[in-house]
Amino acid sequence: MNFEVDLAIEVLERTPPALAALLGGVSESWIRGTEGPDTFSPFDVVGHLIDGEETDWIPRARIILAQGESLRFEPYDRFRHKQRNAGRSLTSLLQEFADLRKQNLRLLRSWNITSRHLSLPGEHPRLASVTLAQLLAAWVVHDLGHIAQVSRVLAKQYSDEVGPWTPYLPVLTDHLRPRS
Amino acid sequence: MNFEVDLAIEVLERTPPALAALLGGVSESWIRGTEGPDTFSPFDVVGHLIDGEETDWIPRARIILAQGESLRFEPYDRFRHKQRNAGRSLTSLLQEFADLRKQNLRLLRSWNITSRHLSLPGEHPRLASVTLAQLLAAWVVHDLGHIAQVSRVLAKQYSDEVGPWTPYLPVLTDHLRPRS
Repeated sequence: MNFEVDLAIEVLERTPPALAALLGGVSESWIRGTEGPDTFSPFDVVGHLIDGEETDWIPRARIILAQGESLRFEPYDRFRHKQRNAGRSLTSLLQEFADLRKQNLRLLRSWNITSRHLSLPGEHPRLASVTLAQLLAAWVVHDLGHIAQVSRVLAKQYSDEVGPWTPYLPVLTDHLRPRS
Repeated sequence: MNFEVDLAIEVLERTPPALAALLGGVSESWIRGTEGPDTFSPFDVVGHLIDGEETDWIPRARIILAQGESLRFEPYDRFRHKQRNAGRSLTSLLQEFADLRKQNLRLLRSWNITSRHLSLPGEHPRLASVTLAQLLAAWVVHDLGHIAQVSRVLAKQYSDEVGPWTPYLPVLTDHLRPRS
């Protein structure tokens, strides 16, 4: 598929309700499980996605669209959520994520992005030059990667419960050395 | 986590709404994309999950609980959905899956499963002896594996659109030689 803003928004607007449908109201033992030390639980993933709304995707798109003196993005702190959300409930994080995403997509739509905008450059702190289209496509893929991660982390809580089925359930052996 | 029926049901009852939230109403180009020849699209995955409701999990649980003369399960046809659903819309498949799952969970709850039931054996056509607990845990993990797969397959439609971001988005390079 080629990148198109409308098709990207179709996915971006579904991520909060999909995560709410998957995680809303489930027990703490599902929500807090991880894949091992220093990896994200489903709770952490929702916090990380909130960080993305506040500090990553839209702020970087603004830098590109402004085409000001510096095109350089701020680095993205992948662990900001850890302190920020201590003591929060998952229900409140899911709602916050949904609200932030709604605001950000309203803003994105209001920019009436054309193909000229899509090829404008920005400067990633480690990847060097990227375009607005690449940034927005990465936002979509980032969402989907984290939905896949939540499903995988939930699945792995039953790694020892499926007995001889393990070889038929590849999700249990994906990312044996996971990156958070 | 140890297997508990109530915790398993928490996930099993969320799979249909999670998939509906992720896929309901999105464009055909998202729904029909695959990871390559002979792999499942998101549309195929929903059909495969319907097959599971009709021919796999609950029918096998019945065989175990009956403890009749043969404990052997029927093999599971992983491609039954291909012919069955030609011409169907994804919306109607999502609804059918939700209805079947609801009926099956009503049945599962009505069995009032105890720890004695959970250790009863069945005979998998290729895995040999399995218990009811392992069957039900595998049902949960199977759901979650397919939600992860749907997210990954959607993400891969943008493999060529994210430019230099690829190494930061591991979902794009998961299952490079995918099993359907």
